[in-house]
Amino acid sequence: MREVNIALVGLGTVGSGVYKTLSMQKERVEHKEGLTLNLKKVLALEYAIEIDESLKAKDFYTDIAADESIDIVIELIGGISPAKEFILAALKKGKTVVTANKELMAQYWPELNSAAKKSGAGLYFEASVGGGIPILRTIWESLQANEITSVMGIINGTTNYILTKMAEENQSYEAVLKEAQRLGMAEANPKSDVEGYDAMYKLSILSSMAFHARVPIEYIYREGITNITQEDIAYGKELGYTLKLLAISKRRGNTVEARVHPTMIPNAHPLASVRGSFNAIYLHGNVVDDIMLYGRGAGDMPTASAVVSDVIYAANQSSHKHTTFYNEKDASSEMSFENNWESAFFLRLLVADSPGVLAKISNILGKFEVSVASVIQKGQSEDSVPLIFITHKANELSVKSAINEISDIDEVISVANIIRVEN
Amino acid sequence: MREVNIALVGLGTVGSGVYKTLSMQKERVEHKEGLTLNLKKVLALEYAIEIDESLKAKDFYTDIAADESIDIVIELIGGISPAKEFILAALKKGKTVVTANKELMAQYWPELNSAAKKSGAGLYFEASVGGGIPILRTIWESLQANEITSVMGIINGTTNYILTKMAEENQSYEAVLKEAQRLGMAEANPKSDVEGYDAMYKLSILSSMAFHARVPIEYIYREGITNITQEDIAYGKELGYTLKLLAISKRRGNTVEARVHPTMIPNAHPLASVRGSFNAIYLHGNVVDDIMLYGRGAGDMPTASAVVSDVIYAANQSSHKHTTFYNEKDASSEMSFENNWESAFFLRLLVADSPGVLAKISNILGKFEVSVASVIQKGQSEDSVPLIFITHKANELSVKSAINEISDIDEVISVANIIRVEN
Repeated sequence: MREVNIALVGLGTVGSGVYKTLSMQKERVEHKEGLTLNLKKVLALEYAIEIDESLKAKDFYTDIAADESIDIVIELIGGISPAKEFILAALKKGKTVVTANKELMAQYWPELNSAAKKSGAGLYFEASVGGGIPILRTIWESLQANEITSVMGIINGTTNYILTKMAEENQSYEAVLKEAQRLGMAEANPKSDVEGYDAMYKLSILSSMAFHARVPIEYIYREGITNITQEDIAYGKELGYTLKLLAISKRRGNTVEARVHPTMIPNAHPLASVRGSFNAIYLHGNVVDDIMLYGRGAGDMPTASAVVSDVIYAANQSSHKHTTFYNEKDASSEMSFENNWESAFFLRLLVADSPGVLAKISNILGKFEVSVASVIQKGQSEDSVPLIFITHKANELSVKSAINEISDIDEVISVANIIRVEN
Repeated sequence: MREVNIALVGLGTVGSGVYKTLSMQKERVEHKEGLTLNLKKVLALEYAIEIDESLKAKDFYTDIAADESIDIVIELIGGISPAKEFILAALKKGKTVVTANKELMAQYWPELNSAAKKSGAGLYFEASVGGGIPILRTIWESLQANEITSVMGIINGTTNYILTKMAEENQSYEAVLKEAQRLGMAEANPKSDVEGYDAMYKLSILSSMAFHARVPIEYIYREGITNITQEDIAYGKELGYTLKLLAISKRRGNTVEARVHPTMIPNAHPLASVRGSFNAIYLHGNVVDDIMLYGRGAGDMPTASAVVSDVIYAANQSSHKHTTFYNEKDASSEMSFENNWESAFFLRLLVADSPGVLAKISNILGKFEVSVASVIQKGQSEDSVPLIFITHKANELSVKSAINEISDIDEVISVANIIRVEN
């Protein structure tokens, strides 16, 4: 029976899940894989669950990095420091690292990757994107025959929970956020989720893997859900669309666009039925066509599934693969990053209920080559009426220029929202 | 640069897709994997596409099995014979085999597997289930930390196309089947698809993999979609359900149930929005919770994605893994197969419109411990009215006994359909 000795760093939510999974699955893994998973050390500032005293480590460098018997280090403390120093120290000693740290991987992948290459250690991070959904290994080990040309993901459970509740229960953003915080579905400071930072880190990792070219966070457009209202969702629904926070990236030749923003997708799109805190990643490959993976994007046990599967996978490799990006040395040298992408748009305006205003707006849209697919004008009122457009595909910058001119029309009271549409 | 020499056997739809993919992706695979894919021989009875004369083989044994330089044989002729003899001959010579042959794998897996073990050759068959969807490798290489307890799949594209059309366009089974045949979505003799044989083969492979225990086709209950009517679909919809042909297997301890039959699932279930010829497999693992993979279950290119990805994966292994089932020697020795499973039921009856009939039926259901979740009784008529029940979970055999007694009631004109429901 082969054995693998493991050190676990971090014993919060995911760490506890990993601890439980290692003990719960030990016998099954021995039977099925012929592999014994030995948890030898646990290092944590606080112990969320009770563990045997003999397992507790005091110092990463002396108790874990310097322990020759440890093969695999699981890093689950999150954040940049000291996670980065710990991981580099482990890799340098030839220890394979399994991590769920999206922020670190998004920002320091090349540095960590070259440390791993140098010592021949493995670096695995399935849990950093999509929780329990094995999207990275699927790209790596199951879609090798494909050139992946687009990625669209619901990769933040908190925002998907909020948008689902707003849509299904017709509640305001603020009310649902408060409820999500009460239920532990959103942090007290929800910025990382609702402003799209979490999705941006994950999209960087996911699209780098999919395109085999590094997509740094600096090149990712990011817009959160804080300006989304019940009206946007309701009008979208009326036009046959569901509103999601999507992480999107597309590759054409050596040009990549990457963006995180609220997006209207047709109700029949498979991503539209991904409800609550579930995640899903929808890919297009040039051979396999469309493919989607769906599952739990967070939580102690689902994330532990990805971490422990990485550990088993790593233990079964005779040598570890390392990514070699096309644009390894300088992210922008061989790839260009597009910010004037094409998409359709949902425009919600408040206008004075007077004749001719629709014509004025349509003229400006036409002038910027933005053509209209559908329009809703609602009711009559002395003050203002909503006017909603869905455009055909147009360039981002043309639409912004058009909107600038439109907001100068006297009868246009406000441009209430501009939301991108993917069909 | 590592090289792998490939022989392709079969050049029909999928074979042509593989041929195209090998040439289309050659450069990319060299760059990304450091691996050259050399197609050396092609053996086919008919050549669906034009290929170089120098590639054409005349005899499997002399031109392929005996050719020491060939590393991997791709078998795409389908059926049992001569595919089985070809694969055994290749494995015996230590050549790795990649196949899409579901019927062969479902029926002869143990024999093929032990031939592969004996010579150390690899045996890969991702394309045999779910076309382009990498479900087998996901179970094998990404969900190792899980005990998988249930599998529910839409794994036959033809029947899903037919049921989707019937539901969305309110057409009869016969009309849609005829259209599907005209479009090449169904065979002239559609039996293998519409009677559930194709799904049964795939379920055998899929659940054997998921449960790590062989589930032979003899133990799989099979019922096709030929008795499904527009009425069933419409009443299901009214009650919040979508009708799909599902392949279901569940494991509890050492007991497995496996069945292919039309199934009502709630509209909000992720499988309910899988439309047309798309496939999807929904799994439950004890760590990862629910997970679903969605994609194209057939077609030349999607299936080629699975085949060529298998080839690349196999070429990257220093040694090949082989399954060792718990019940390797005798399928029923360590596992028992359940035929009295629990599920909810949709019952559609035609009854005389007279007082007391509902009470009579309810009494019988109660006597067999089948409790009713909802009921619809429609309209008034001199002849007959439809009466639809959805039951709570009940044992298969109890429901069948109840139905037997119910059909003896004078006022019950007919038991129009009995459809299982999964929630």
